[in-house]
Amino acid sequence: MVSGTRAVERCKALGVAPFSDMEGGLYRAWLTPAYRAAQEQLAAWMVEAGLTPRKDAAANLVGRYEGTSDLPPLIIGSHLDSVRDAGLYDGPLGIMLGVECVAALAAQGRRMPFPIEIYAFGDEEGSRFPAAMLTSKAVAGVLHDVPEMADPQGVTLAQALAEFGLSPEGLAQARHGGALAYLEAHIEQGPVLEAEGLALGVVTGIAAQLRYGVVVKGLAGHAGTSSMPLRRDALAGAADMVLAAESIARADASDLVATVGKIEALPGAANVICGEVRFTLDVRSGDAARRDRAAEAMLQAFNQIAENRGLTCTITPIHDLPASPCAPALMDRLEQALVDNGHPPFRLVSGAGHDAMVISALAPTAMLFIRCRHGISHNPAEHVEPADAEAALAVMLGFIEKLGADYA
Amino acid sequence: MVSGTRAVERCKALGVAPFSDMEGGLYRAWLTPAYRAAQEQLAAWMVEAGLTPRKDAAANLVGRYEGTSDLPPLIIGSHLDSVRDAGLYDGPLGIMLGVECVAALAAQGRRMPFPIEIYAFGDEEGSRFPAAMLTSKAVAGVLHDVPEMADPQGVTLAQALAEFGLSPEGLAQARHGGALAYLEAHIEQGPVLEAEGLALGVVTGIAAQLRYGVVVKGLAGHAGTSSMPLRRDALAGAADMVLAAESIARADASDLVATVGKIEALPGAANVICGEVRFTLDVRSGDAARRDRAAEAMLQAFNQIAENRGLTCTITPIHDLPASPCAPALMDRLEQALVDNGHPPFRLVSGAGHDAMVISALAPTAMLFIRCRHGISHNPAEHVEPADAEAALAVMLGFIEKLGADYA
Repeated sequence: MVSGTRAVERCKALGVAPFSDMEGGLYRAWLTPAYRAAQEQLAAWMVEAGLTPRKDAAANLVGRYEGTSDLPPLIIGSHLDSVRDAGLYDGPLGIMLGVECVAALAAQGRRMPFPIEIYAFGDEEGSRFPAAMLTSKAVAGVLHDVPEMADPQGVTLAQALAEFGLSPEGLAQARHGGALAYLEAHIEQGPVLEAEGLALGVVTGIAAQLRYGVVVKGLAGHAGTSSMPLRRDALAGAADMVLAAESIARADASDLVATVGKIEALPGAANVICGEVRFTLDVRSGDAARRDRAAEAMLQAFNQIAENRGLTCTITPIHDLPASPCAPALMDRLEQALVDNGHPPFRLVSGAGHDAMVISALAPTAMLFIRCRHGISHNPAEHVEPADAEAALAVMLGFIEKLGADYA
Repeated sequence: MVSGTRAVERCKALGVAPFSDMEGGLYRAWLTPAYRAAQEQLAAWMVEAGLTPRKDAAANLVGRYEGTSDLPPLIIGSHLDSVRDAGLYDGPLGIMLGVECVAALAAQGRRMPFPIEIYAFGDEEGSRFPAAMLTSKAVAGVLHDVPEMADPQGVTLAQALAEFGLSPEGLAQARHGGALAYLEAHIEQGPVLEAEGLALGVVTGIAAQLRYGVVVKGLAGHAGTSSMPLRRDALAGAADMVLAAESIARADASDLVATVGKIEALPGAANVICGEVRFTLDVRSGDAARRDRAAEAMLQAFNQIAENRGLTCTITPIHDLPASPCAPALMDRLEQALVDNGHPPFRLVSGAGHDAMVISALAPTAMLFIRCRHGISHNPAEHVEPADAEAALAVMLGFIEKLGADYA
């Protein structure tokens, strides 16, 4: 009865109406009819697994499985909401696997020393209101002063919450009283595990992220009448910078990644040498010091390239998000559970943000990444092999056993 | 009385109303009120110089100075029209210097063995109708079947010509009966002469021009979750290609130029690895074979880069304009006139197109480039030193003397 395959099937079941508000695809934003329907279905599955469901003040659905003592709970969580035209697994799979964990314990009539709470968070994606992770922030106790906001249809957050009998002012009451640990299983949303030929990996933390805007200025000129040695071509300079960033990130040979994802060249005509180029640089690593060193090297390289080419280069910081490392003791237990189940002890950083990043203010966190096909996510082509979900379930149960032994 | 400085002053005089149709700047398009006013002023200056003005069937103003025999004429020409918000010298300076040449001969009461005709062409820039060099094409006898066209205000070519008592069908009647040679003096519109510290240079020809559209496809992905070795980043690949083109063009160390002036990266978000980049490649040289070899090397490099990076690269030819070399015998005479006047015998290619390119179908051509400040053109900041115009006038007169000796 208990199975990772069922968790996958349940994600598929939630991919259509009434659990989606989008014709021919999945879109399930926080506090929508699809969200409500998905909560009702999930509550039924929770009850079936032996969990007692409740809703908190942030409209999160929570299922609780009592332990043998009054220790704070282990929270297993992920998010029920989705982006528009989403894949089926980004979020729900972690919840469904949590439900399966409890179903497995309940099937054996077992209780752990601590209670287990399965959290289905509401708005990790931020795909409705101009904010994200409001509900995990409320649970972590870090939500203060929610600003007034509205969705693209003009429905305010207050109106949407009122339909659930809730209010913006009340969100903070979802604050949790304290947890032993937080475990989140999530698809990787990247190609690392697939490339390594591995089903699972232990997440070492959420990457620290730096973002810059770079403006390179040279001299626009006629593509036919300016000889090569005399040019001050802003696009050639920017190309040099793109490759410098790539080269520095590659040479680091760690989890460090650097991306120039957006570029604009002016005036932008085939017969005019570019006078100005604007681009973004995004640098991430699980290790903030490593990230900072690499970013510093990149910016130095940019300035040197500009100088060598007679260009000017103006660099503006856009944002600087700190790293959120997972708890070493929990990583060790998760890794041991991997090894016990015949997997290599592979660790990787999460480049994307997750509820775990926010919950780390409440409790030590651990994350298990599950391989997804071609690393594709935020896309209907998102795919997880049921066998990988089975493997994840076994490792999560092993982790729970080890945590139980700590508190025995 | 006769002077290059006066030629410069006359260009300035034609930079304002009624010789411009633009408030606070110069815009003089073909067949406009400003064009008509400029023709009237120029005709007066022609008469003053000893020329006999006429208009041809393409609304070109032509001034003729008879010779001592019935040889075909030497044509000295350039264009009277301008781009919008133009500089003062691109076009008119060559006409004004031609007028000064004749004024110098007339002041001495001298006639050459051949007549001299000063041509003020009408629409070199193509800044009104969607066509360019219609009037020099008519003179060269290469204008066949003028398509119906209108300016941005909806005025058709037929209507505009009718105001000058002309018609599209009649344009071809502007065909010239035959000329000994064609001489065009023009500002360089590029920075080569200034960088060489030279006032003047002999143009070896109009560059052959190849243009391609390049589409590079990789795999879009999350900037945080895709490790560096696994990326197939279309923008990093395109950057590699931009630098390869630059490097091949620089290594050629000739007149060859290569420009990537337009680039677009998709999806174009700071946190998404580029999946697709589109850019243009423009390659020019006075020597078509050299141009073709370089372009071939660039396209090979693009394909190799794509292969190495796991990208696809699709290259589409946009256009292929042949080179228009100047006549070697005329270049030699122009160069000798440079040396006689104390200038180094410097030669350079024209990356931009000129009426001479079209007139080469009618007669052997020569072009003299005049230094312009910072290579700036098609811009109100266009500037020519009067001393450089004086030097150009002396060299043009020297060239006329040498041509006269050929026919003595």
